[in-house]
Amino acid sequence: MASPGALIEVRRAVREFLREHAPQRPGALFVGVSGGPDSLALTDATTQAARHLGKPVTALVVDHGLQPGSAEVAATAAELARKLGADDARVLTVTVSGAGGPEAAARHARYRAMREALPSGDALVLLGHTLDDQAETVLLGLGRGSGPRSVAGMRPLDPPWGRPLLGVPRALTRAACAELGVEPWLDPHNSDRRYTRVRLREEVLPLLEDVLAGGVARALARTAAQLREDTDTLDALAGELFERAADGADLDVDVLTPAPPALRRRVLRRWLLAAGVRELTDAHLRSVDALLGDWRGQGGVWLPGNFEARRARGKLLVRP
Amino acid sequence: MASPGALIEVRRAVREFLREHAPQRPGALFVGVSGGPDSLALTDATTQAARHLGKPVTALVVDHGLQPGSAEVAATAAELARKLGADDARVLTVTVSGAGGPEAAARHARYRAMREALPSGDALVLLGHTLDDQAETVLLGLGRGSGPRSVAGMRPLDPPWGRPLLGVPRALTRAACAELGVEPWLDPHNSDRRYTRVRLREEVLPLLEDVLAGGVARALARTAAQLREDTDTLDALAGELFERAADGADLDVDVLTPAPPALRRRVLRRWLLAAGVRELTDAHLRSVDALLGDWRGQGGVWLPGNFEARRARGKLLVRP
Repeated sequence: MASPGALIEVRRAVREFLREHAPQRPGALFVGVSGGPDSLALTDATTQAARHLGKPVTALVVDHGLQPGSAEVAATAAELARKLGADDARVLTVTVSGAGGPEAAARHARYRAMREALPSGDALVLLGHTLDDQAETVLLGLGRGSGPRSVAGMRPLDPPWGRPLLGVPRALTRAACAELGVEPWLDPHNSDRRYTRVRLREEVLPLLEDVLAGGVARALARTAAQLREDTDTLDALAGELFERAADGADLDVDVLTPAPPALRRRVLRRWLLAAGVRELTDAHLRSVDALLGDWRGQGGVWLPGNFEARRARGKLLVRP
Repeated sequence: MASPGALIEVRRAVREFLREHAPQRPGALFVGVSGGPDSLALTDATTQAARHLGKPVTALVVDHGLQPGSAEVAATAAELARKLGADDARVLTVTVSGAGGPEAAARHARYRAMREALPSGDALVLLGHTLDDQAETVLLGLGRGSGPRSVAGMRPLDPPWGRPLLGVPRALTRAACAELGVEPWLDPHNSDRRYTRVRLREEVLPLLEDVLAGGVARALARTAAQLREDTDTLDALAGELFERAADGADLDVDVLTPAPPALRRRVLRRWLLAAGVRELTDAHLRSVDALLGDWRGQGGVWLPGNFEARRARGKLLVRP
């Protein structure tokens, strides 16, 4: 796809990201490289920006060992990263296993391997997630109904991870690679329709784009950014409220009850998680919240893992 | 579709809605009726519940005059509403015109006609929006990128309007009509793919349902409910902050600057709307916000309608 100036746009996004966030992460600079167009365009832009900062850039290539020839793919990606100006490129070999489906297990192994490769200190690892990845993440979170936080998508800075390309469409990273004359690797998993994310990308988003007359990826990303601000603000306010309401392991009913529902719900979630309760659903939280807002002397609420939350003498208590 | 107990479920939803909300709207009780399955099932459930409350129910049928035979459709709907127990049924004839596309113009005319038909006092008008309508509304808001408020969907109670069926799938209202032995009217507009909402319903949501392995409408509605709580809380907190920051028509910089971004953005939006600025975008708000959080002595920000917002002597000012 011809898109004159793609390289310039990708480089600008990375430069601006580093100007804003690098001061908070002054340690070594890394870039996660798969060999695909997003991470190669990112590598070029990062080495360009790092030159001005006088910082070396190390590329981290994860070999998941999931496909035949994955070692060669990784070696080629590392070589390309060096050609694009990375001072060093390391291949991390991982074994993918564990729960949550193949996508989740591979992601988990990848992040862990990169994290373990970092030196101590405030290292920053740039990742190539684009505007389209963000749109897919938002749709996925929305479809799962797992709440505002998951609809808020990925964060630009989530130390040690940095995502400078969340505002850059995927098409631009491809065009940037073409301008650079590099041939990116096209992961066959990225077009395998057994993966939910691939179907969101190849079926749902193009259809939504057609039905809503365009601009959907950008609209999803814009909403996600506003939701991040909203949920960050509510989380911070809930943190303050939690401190005021906490009384040892219990919560003071008089402090919590007059608070708005969105803050109460967050305080209760934190409190129950801290007590060791897992697999909390929205329905559980609402039942515990009814001990505050809809108090009629009712009994305790049973929670997963045989916990019970109940109200007694002006306190909320949770016990295994 | 056979769904034993559909009638019971629809009736329960309306009964619980009225138990929770009717005390806040103690005036006359109305139900908006199109003659389709949602509003007929709603009419039955409302007259059942109203009997226990000792209240008469008046059906309001709007004839939009947009399709040949619309007067007969309206007369039939009114007759069915009476058969289903409505004490009175009135046909309101409207002329649809105005900006914003045919869907928006019809909706605007319909709501206005119903509002004008209400007596003074705290009347409540029940509307037949279902879980599926809510899911469509959320997707529509999300695709437009118009922010968390639009993704939060329709409110259950938005006086004088009440929506008891937002948790009830559309399939259940059809099944309830079958149980009642009434033949609902199927509006041809509801399957006309020139309408965005119809394509969301018939193409996007079924595909999402397939890709995400089910439960999408309920997941969207659940997220919407949490977002409503979140945005209501933030709006209330922003209202308090606005009062503290307001200094005549100006805003006090020292009060606003330390506030979290999600509250600042809301205060600025209210303040600019109150000053008469229209067509505010997210980018405008961010530019005005930079006068607080990113103050480097910069000049004013130009806003639509030839307004200028600027900072001077510790205040934010906006002038035409």
